[in-house]
Amino acid sequence: MRIEDVLDERADKGLPFLLQYENVAKYEDGVIYVLDRRVYPRRVEFVRCENYHQAAQAIRDMVTQSGGPRLVASLGMVSAAREARGKPMDEAIAILKQAAYELSHARPTTSQDLARQIEHLRQLAEDALKQGQDPEEITLIHTYRILNERYRNARKIASYAVDLLPNRVTILTQCFAETLIGFTLLVARERGKEVALICPETRPYLQGARLTASVARGLDIPVTVITDNMPAYILSRKMAQVFISAADVITLDGHVVNKVGTFQIALAAHYHGVPYYVLGNPSRSHARITSVEIEERDPQEVLHAMGVPTTMEGVQGYYPAFDVTPPHLVGAVVTSKGVFSPYDLARSFSAESPLD
Amino acid sequence: MRIEDVLDERADKGLPFLLQYENVAKYEDGVIYVLDRRVYPRRVEFVRCENYHQAAQAIRDMVTQSGGPRLVASLGMVSAAREARGKPMDEAIAILKQAAYELSHARPTTSQDLARQIEHLRQLAEDALKQGQDPEEITLIHTYRILNERYRNARKIASYAVDLLPNRVTILTQCFAETLIGFTLLVARERGKEVALICPETRPYLQGARLTASVARGLDIPVTVITDNMPAYILSRKMAQVFISAADVITLDGHVVNKVGTFQIALAAHYHGVPYYVLGNPSRSHARITSVEIEERDPQEVLHAMGVPTTMEGVQGYYPAFDVTPPHLVGAVVTSKGVFSPYDLARSFSAESPLD
Repeated sequence: MRIEDVLDERADKGLPFLLQYENVAKYEDGVIYVLDRRVYPRRVEFVRCENYHQAAQAIRDMVTQSGGPRLVASLGMVSAAREARGKPMDEAIAILKQAAYELSHARPTTSQDLARQIEHLRQLAEDALKQGQDPEEITLIHTYRILNERYRNARKIASYAVDLLPNRVTILTQCFAETLIGFTLLVARERGKEVALICPETRPYLQGARLTASVARGLDIPVTVITDNMPAYILSRKMAQVFISAADVITLDGHVVNKVGTFQIALAAHYHGVPYYVLGNPSRSHARITSVEIEERDPQEVLHAMGVPTTMEGVQGYYPAFDVTPPHLVGAVVTSKGVFSPYDLARSFSAESPLD
Repeated sequence: MRIEDVLDERADKGLPFLLQYENVAKYEDGVIYVLDRRVYPRRVEFVRCENYHQAAQAIRDMVTQSGGPRLVASLGMVSAAREARGKPMDEAIAILKQAAYELSHARPTTSQDLARQIEHLRQLAEDALKQGQDPEEITLIHTYRILNERYRNARKIASYAVDLLPNRVTILTQCFAETLIGFTLLVARERGKEVALICPETRPYLQGARLTASVARGLDIPVTVITDNMPAYILSRKMAQVFISAADVITLDGHVVNKVGTFQIALAAHYHGVPYYVLGNPSRSHARITSVEIEERDPQEVLHAMGVPTTMEGVQGYYPAFDVTPPHLVGAVVTSKGVFSPYDLARSFSAESPLD
């Protein structure tokens, strides 16, 4: 299989700018170009990474977040494979090993899933070298094959989500659900459902205002940004009929760990009788919520807006990145296997159940 | 009574910078200096208003908000009284009338209370002119007498609020409750209660981060700023034991109209068994919540942070300034007459009941 074949059947068709493969990151002759999501949409700029060190640095600097680092780390391995090509075998294998290590450790909390993917790429590259094949081409093909799978999976989840939507609906969301919100809007439109979107801006990084709203805009879906103190009022005015979010982790006991703010929106949705659907597959590695640790990030972030200090010196900040929504506030868990009650996830997603 | 006597018994003693009379606005020889709350605390700047026109303009431009316009409008009348002094009676009376009109109409929704206060000052100035007294001195004395009363009233309310606080407590608040939060922190400390404060930043104007946090800092009260999507998480972690806010309107049927976000914090507080106390006197002119209209402001505000655009062109914004918290989420209404159930306000605050 050639890279052209993989890209012929690319799974990002119809998605707006921000979710198209090349606008997450692209690879050209060993160089990786990463869309700088820190400044998008004010500026459309790509950070140029000439090797895997710089790719790891871009991940560390949060040039891209959410699903972005997965692609950048993989392309980092492709770049390393190119660097290894033609070197003595010992040296080549050392390069691949070092790249896998750096790319897996760019962020303190890299998912096991991503670590596995990088290790798999490393193995593929090493095998290719040993068999006299081109490690760059093989890892690149595999990267896009994985990317296609990930996007197809998101489309499947989104498709189940759209089944739950009325024909005319305004969706309230939170933060940036990436391909999940992109495909939900896209599939809803393909099926002739009339959708509009309301997104809280999601301080301190403003992913809602900067990324989610841009995705909706790119699909010509009417979109309204509100500040993070407005969701309950929006719901009290019946301006949204459903609340949808992705999740950083869905535990097998039905808790949703997602961007801070999700919990209070779910609470307000429940109070107003508005269903909350969480999109994503539950995590096999978290049987219970007790095993999840809530990351606390640099408090300085909440004391600034768009880089400008918002308060007086000596004032403390506090920045929990996520919160936890308990199962009784979750109307449905929408997965690639279908729609589940939050109370019945272990049956289909426990470590023993088959992967789909 | 001379101005010195009124200012000898000034009621802002012990309050931090932002709540001291001179740092709301000050009057010197016809000129009014208004602290620019739009840029505080990044910059401490006073807008110079040379006459009542400019004072009205400062109110219109929101140089000061909350309780600020009350003092600025009154000082505008003092400036007009000075201008009228020595003019032919007809002309002098016309100046006072014009000033009262402009200062009352600087903002579309000036409270009846403020309009009455300005009209009273106009009447005092006219009487003074007719009796050959100094209208500037008389209106200035009256302005500070009213200001003292307002501050004493706030201290009384705060004092009842402090009665409800445990000896060691972290208070969650919302937006900027001005003298009410200032006195609550001050009186709590006077009584040896150990208080700390958590304030949501309160987008889009960031009154929480800029003003409330600065007031706490000025009193050396430990204060933590969070973003507006964090209160429910804070409450779930038991990091605050009480939620306190002021109100733009408390209706006689027990609804609280306050800065948007109050409702969803009250909801989260109720869910976690944390009491919500609202500080302020109920409005005689709103027997029921149905008579209150929620002001919607310029949507552009929510699409910017610290003056910088946060999203893509073509994205809509929506900016309801207030929300409504229903009585079943309100633990107590703390007034200058004492602490009330939200269900029993009409008995003491209806149009027929005596003013205190």
